[in-house]
Amino acid sequence: MSAARTVGILGGGQLGRMLGLSAIPLGIECVFYDPAPDAPARVAGRHICAPWDDRAALAAFAESVDVITFEFENVPTASLAFLAGIRPVRPGVRSLELTCDRIREKEFLRSAGVPVQPFAAIATDADLDLALATVGPHGVLKTRTLGYDGKGQRVVRAAAELAPAWTDLGRRPCIYEAFVPFDREVSVVATRALDGSTAVYPLVENLHTHGILFRSIAPARVDDAIAAAATRHARSVLEGLGHVGTLALEMFVADGTLVANEIAPRVHNSGHWTIGGARTSQFENHMRAVAGLPLGDAGAPEHAAMVNLIGGVPDTAEILAIPGASAHLYGKSPRPGRKVAHMNLVAPSREELLARLERLEALARRVNRLA
Amino acid sequence: MSAARTVGILGGGQLGRMLGLSAIPLGIECVFYDPAPDAPARVAGRHICAPWDDRAALAAFAESVDVITFEFENVPTASLAFLAGIRPVRPGVRSLELTCDRIREKEFLRSAGVPVQPFAAIATDADLDLALATVGPHGVLKTRTLGYDGKGQRVVRAAAELAPAWTDLGRRPCIYEAFVPFDREVSVVATRALDGSTAVYPLVENLHTHGILFRSIAPARVDDAIAAAATRHARSVLEGLGHVGTLALEMFVADGTLVANEIAPRVHNSGHWTIGGARTSQFENHMRAVAGLPLGDAGAPEHAAMVNLIGGVPDTAEILAIPGASAHLYGKSPRPGRKVAHMNLVAPSREELLARLERLEALARRVNRLA
Repeated sequence: MSAARTVGILGGGQLGRMLGLSAIPLGIECVFYDPAPDAPARVAGRHICAPWDDRAALAAFAESVDVITFEFENVPTASLAFLAGIRPVRPGVRSLELTCDRIREKEFLRSAGVPVQPFAAIATDADLDLALATVGPHGVLKTRTLGYDGKGQRVVRAAAELAPAWTDLGRRPCIYEAFVPFDREVSVVATRALDGSTAVYPLVENLHTHGILFRSIAPARVDDAIAAAATRHARSVLEGLGHVGTLALEMFVADGTLVANEIAPRVHNSGHWTIGGARTSQFENHMRAVAGLPLGDAGAPEHAAMVNLIGGVPDTAEILAIPGASAHLYGKSPRPGRKVAHMNLVAPSREELLARLERLEALARRVNRLA
Repeated sequence: MSAARTVGILGGGQLGRMLGLSAIPLGIECVFYDPAPDAPARVAGRHICAPWDDRAALAAFAESVDVITFEFENVPTASLAFLAGIRPVRPGVRSLELTCDRIREKEFLRSAGVPVQPFAAIATDADLDLALATVGPHGVLKTRTLGYDGKGQRVVRAAAELAPAWTDLGRRPCIYEAFVPFDREVSVVATRALDGSTAVYPLVENLHTHGILFRSIAPARVDDAIAAAATRHARSVLEGLGHVGTLALEMFVADGTLVANEIAPRVHNSGHWTIGGARTSQFENHMRAVAGLPLGDAGAPEHAAMVNLIGGVPDTAEILAIPGASAHLYGKSPRPGRKVAHMNLVAPSREELLARLERLEALARRVNRLA
């Protein structure tokens, strides 16, 4: 079995851009399929600019590559099935099917031995009472599909709020999850190769603002036992899905244990620190996996962090003046709420990391415009 | 003073390719000027494909960028002067003038307080005897200009060999340098910013085969005093040249002291390990410098090495199966003696580095074709 030389990537956003940049040194050419003419990934490979349902363009795309992957999991199912008839799609359909629907995702996690909070499906008015009985009056109502960055979610603080929240979300099929009073939000990013071998990155500690990731720290400030459990959970998920490529498992640390929140079946914002922070980035390991190559070391020699720039970017010189900082611009025009860049940080000790991180976070807070 | 957004790069080889890849995350667009239609750098920016003396193309190139740099120091002087009349060229003309001629280079090194071996200029038959008197009967005769990778050089082992060697080199203006019976070949890669601040990488230990770099190890296996002296010498050279950008100072360790051999006024093969091996690569620091941005940390958290692939490339899978190894392909078709890729290696200890390095070197020896 020889390695893929040309990889097709569905989606040409910043994740595609970073995948493409990591592929070039490996001698892998990327072809991006994205309807946006100014797709950020276009600097890192060929760009096919066509709608998601253009069968002729999809066929030409598939035929020009050895294997197909995605940086964007909401590709229409019919298009994906069409592509899968022409070239291998990695990760496979199972990874998408079990993560694009929050109910199936939670059921899968439970079956894989990964703890989840109580949850219930809501499809009709009759489901509301049962959901309250199962989950309780404090929870989060989310659409089963297509939510991201806090969109399609409503917090419920009392039993009487559930029905109005559901109406607010358009009475679409939803999941109602128990509110988890967490100590920390964490995530584990991990990659599985075509031969089944895995590479798991150090546990990451995340901070969200208005539902959007603001900053990550790696390794997370948790007990070793928690970090070890997170690694085990990541491996269970990778294997349970038969995943090929990188994914992220987002979890809460609550009362000293882990509770899984969701799976992103692709490279993830909470893994951006791995560029320069880990021995192999999540992007390079994803490309290695889908191309059928051996994975790289996911260890990190130092402490690392990442801060998102959302809706605005400071002068690059201001970022780079902070010791250990690097800038990762996506080439997108700033709009409120839009992720336009991130800043990575490394330091030889946790203390130095946190001191430098304060400066990076202050910079981000000055320019970020969330909505 | 605002940072450059578009940087023109003279030369589009692998050095340009790696410069361009490091520029993209910084939000810097690169424009490469290279007469070769298949220039390896074309994947990392816009490519102007025109001869070195095409004034119209040179002018269009210069006018499309904020600042100009080079990855190839043998750009015709007249073309460079023409470009310098349109946009700033960094590093400046002084760095090129003092390094493109081996006699002026050695004189500059001596004036900068960097030890050099005895040397003499040879331009006429009358110079031969004086050169032998100054340098002795064991030396190396090199053309004053345009030599690289061991080309344009003859070893002299007895007084009677000097005149025939000079004839062999076409009686071109030459330098005759005393042979240095060295213990190790080392180099120091360093960058100077527009504001005069500097970043010096750990000393590198090099091994050449048939005049071409085969592998580098960082940090070099030398006493701390030698490493500290190398850093001082690098700073003297950067400051003496008023250099802006990255350069490499190649030296010998002989009898426990350093003897400077030559300066490469650009990013250098012995700094390729800094991709993934140092906190900021030599390529990113060069781009930061020429764009007027602050430099990044040149420190290395672990042990690192680099092995060149010359004339052949193994299966990428074979490279990546070695722990800590990464592959850096240049997109060039293999020809004997042509550098087509390199492999980088990191390891947490020197012992592990050397054990893994044996495997990488064996791989390279199997595929390399030197001539």
